[in-house]
Amino acid sequence: MNDIVRFDVSDGVGVITLNRPERLNALDDAMHPALDEAFIAAFRSKEARAIVLTGAGRGFCAGADLTRLDRLAEGRGTNYDVPRPGTLSTAYAGLGLSADTASTYTFPLAMPKPVIGAINGPCVGVGFVLAAACDVRFASTTAKFGAAFPQRGLPAEAGLAWLLPRLVGRNFASDLLMSGRMLGAEEALRIGLVSRIEEPDALLNAAIAYAHDIAANSAPQAVRLIKQQLFDGADESFGDAARTAHDLLIERLGSDDFVEGIASFREKRPPRFADL
Amino acid sequence: MNDIVRFDVSDGVGVITLNRPERLNALDDAMHPALDEAFIAAFRSKEARAIVLTGAGRGFCAGADLTRLDRLAEGRGTNYDVPRPGTLSTAYAGLGLSADTASTYTFPLAMPKPVIGAINGPCVGVGFVLAAACDVRFASTTAKFGAAFPQRGLPAEAGLAWLLPRLVGRNFASDLLMSGRMLGAEEALRIGLVSRIEEPDALLNAAIAYAHDIAANSAPQAVRLIKQQLFDGADESFGDAARTAHDLLIERLGSDDFVEGIASFREKRPPRFADL
Amino acid sequence: MNDIVRFDVSDGVGVITLNRPERLNALDDAMHPALDEAFIAAFRSKEARAIVLTGAGRGFCAGADLTRLDRLAEGRGTNYDVPRPGTLSTAYAGLGLSADTASTYTFPLAMPKPVIGAINGPCVGVGFVLAAACDVRFASTTAKFGAAFPQRGLPAEAGLAWLLPRLVGRNFASDLLMSGRMLGAEEALRIGLVSRIEEPDALLNAAIAYAHDIAANSAPQAVRLIKQQLFDGADESFGDAARTAHDLLIERLGSDDFVEGIASFREKRPPRFADL
Repeated sequence: MNDIVRFDVSDGVGVITLNRPERLNALDDAMHPALDEAFIAAFRSKEARAIVLTGAGRGFCAGADLTRLDRLAEGRGTNYDVPRPGTLSTAYAGLGLSADTASTYTFPLAMPKPVIGAINGPCVGVGFVLAAACDVRFASTTAKFGAAFPQRGLPAEAGLAWLLPRLVGRNFASDLLMSGRMLGAEEALRIGLVSRIEEPDALLNAAIAYAHDIAANSAPQAVRLIKQQLFDGADESFGDAARTAHDLLIERLGSDDFVEGIASFREKRPPRFADL
Repeated sequence: MNDIVRFDVSDGVGVITLNRPERLNALDDAMHPALDEAFIAAFRSKEARAIVLTGAGRGFCAGADLTRLDRLAEGRGTNYDVPRPGTLSTAYAGLGLSADTASTYTFPLAMPKPVIGAINGPCVGVGFVLAAACDVRFASTTAKFGAAFPQRGLPAEAGLAWLLPRLVGRNFASDLLMSGRMLGAEEALRIGLVSRIEEPDALLNAAIAYAHDIAANSAPQAVRLIKQQLFDGADESFGDAARTAHDLLIERLGSDDFVEGIASFREKRPPRFADL
Repeated sequence: MNDIVRFDVSDGVGVITLNRPERLNALDDAMHPALDEAFIAAFRSKEARAIVLTGAGRGFCAGADLTRLDRLAEGRGTNYDVPRPGTLSTAYAGLGLSADTASTYTFPLAMPKPVIGAINGPCVGVGFVLAAACDVRFASTTAKFGAAFPQRGLPAEAGLAWLLPRLVGRNFASDLLMSGRMLGAEEALRIGLVSRIEEPDALLNAAIAYAHDIAANSAPQAVRLIKQQLFDGADESFGDAARTAHDLLIERLGSDDFVEGIASFREKRPPRFADL
């Protein structure tokens, strides 16, 4: 297994691993299509009901690789190769996904399954975007988050300026994006960026156990709808969100999943929910 | 006093108590109209300038009662009896309230007075919706919050997917809604879901004292406007919010309440503000 | 130096000081034009790449001065002199700034540079608005935040009902705005209102050091864009924010700042970025 991005499934949980540990999993040009492929495999996998995204070795993702930054600087950006949101790249075409989110750095938002970021070390630049696009984040005590963009002369990439205030509020979003300072795991927990901190060698198992709990006990269709409700709810009025919730509820009250949800609850046994 | 929902007023504060302690105040079909009635009594009470919502016994509200869930499962939802938001139920008609919020589970949002949730124990499913719809929450050390919806095969009900990210951010909203995991009081305080934790036997008095402080010192009309500003401000631009604030300020600078606010401040005495 | 508002620049950082310490820097009628002038000086200063806003003496800003409140109460608000947002006051005309934010109490939002609030003591009423409009806040252990509006019979002023939920979430925004209670520094840190707490005699230097780090290492153009992205992102969809980010990225990848950002990173030396 020396793929630069790996995808493994086991017991309901898919794990995507950025796997270029000697460069702290910095994204070079070759990593982009490999990451796209892993995301699509996770999307397509029937068995994987919840996804964990992590990095091999000591880092999560150190951002764009210097070879890639050099290429972009040389071309003055004329050779930038990630499509404008709203336009799907070839990799993601034909899957029925939103062209606003189904892009390399923000694909966790497009995935109709929970994506848990297991942030095992430095998480910088577009690596920070990837982490912020996950639904939930766990961090190891060695995790470090940094925006890095203003120090390279760049704006906040790929919707990070939209995501971060909704994760940690305006004070810390401004603080982190304007200064590009590094944020440690303890502070990340305190400000609400991550749900939990674990020792480095316990992190991945903790994230997998959490994902497995969702895979085993939450109805995949319900989780898919909840993820969509959270995303849509960010931009709509309470009334619109409540109307959508009402309509989805009526629909799901008629489903076998609901009957099974009640029966398994009453019988104190694990539920058997339909696949996505 | 064996009403299944009670409403008591004393010294400016109204207390609504879910009162079916033997079932942890789970909402069965009979509780719905009783809760509607208590909300309307709180709304109509001239004396009650601030409202506390709590549960009798060891629980706040365990969610929908199994008898109710069984009935809904049997009818596959065709017998669901809470109106779609935008349509007022008969109970709430004619009160001049918003049809988007004046509904059993979200009425605290419609109430033109502060509603303080005193979360005294398990707070699950639609009980969690009720708690999230309050303006401010205090919790006892024995409080536990759980969404429960995905484990029953259901989406997030009644706008919870809108409320929760605005209370605790996207990370914890996703975490709690997708996993349905139980959240304890300490973590609820840490992530910003509740303002304060108290020992179980001190909780209700603490919430009442807080509500009483608002009733005694905050102008009811000002609090009503502030609650509306917070609700409307969630969906509008800063400029629109600032314009509304300007117009409301001009209007209130002309009020007797403002003159009384300045006079009582200067004279270091409690203010005497107009009723709602 | 006995200006009632001071502006000093040194080593890339501009410091605005509310300077009426005997009144805890309460804003009387004379302070308004003086503060406008200081904001404009900070805006115009080429040297000042980041701004610190603080108060002289024991207070940050105690809100509107009683002489001003008395005048407004006497006139029943007919003599209120801050223009409605959307209309620029004469002081801010012709600078190319947004008429929604370029107003005395919210100017930090209009400033195309980072504004760090160094909250050194009581911060009340419109003083709280000023603090909330900053991008980032540090507090001394003696800082105290209070909305005060409902106790004077007033609504939330100047967009505070929009800013506060985006800083600390709905629970604490409702709590602070409805009760007007005083919030200490420890709780302000816990709920995400401030980034850091310092001892009183260390606060200003800490804020200046932080601002200096941004001035020295973040490209001014990038920071300006990031600030705009954060402001606009509050009201737009993720897709729109991601499209803006894409377009800005393409533009900045073509800039000298990006080339310098990569070169200085590779050479492990401080960057030399273009002025605003």
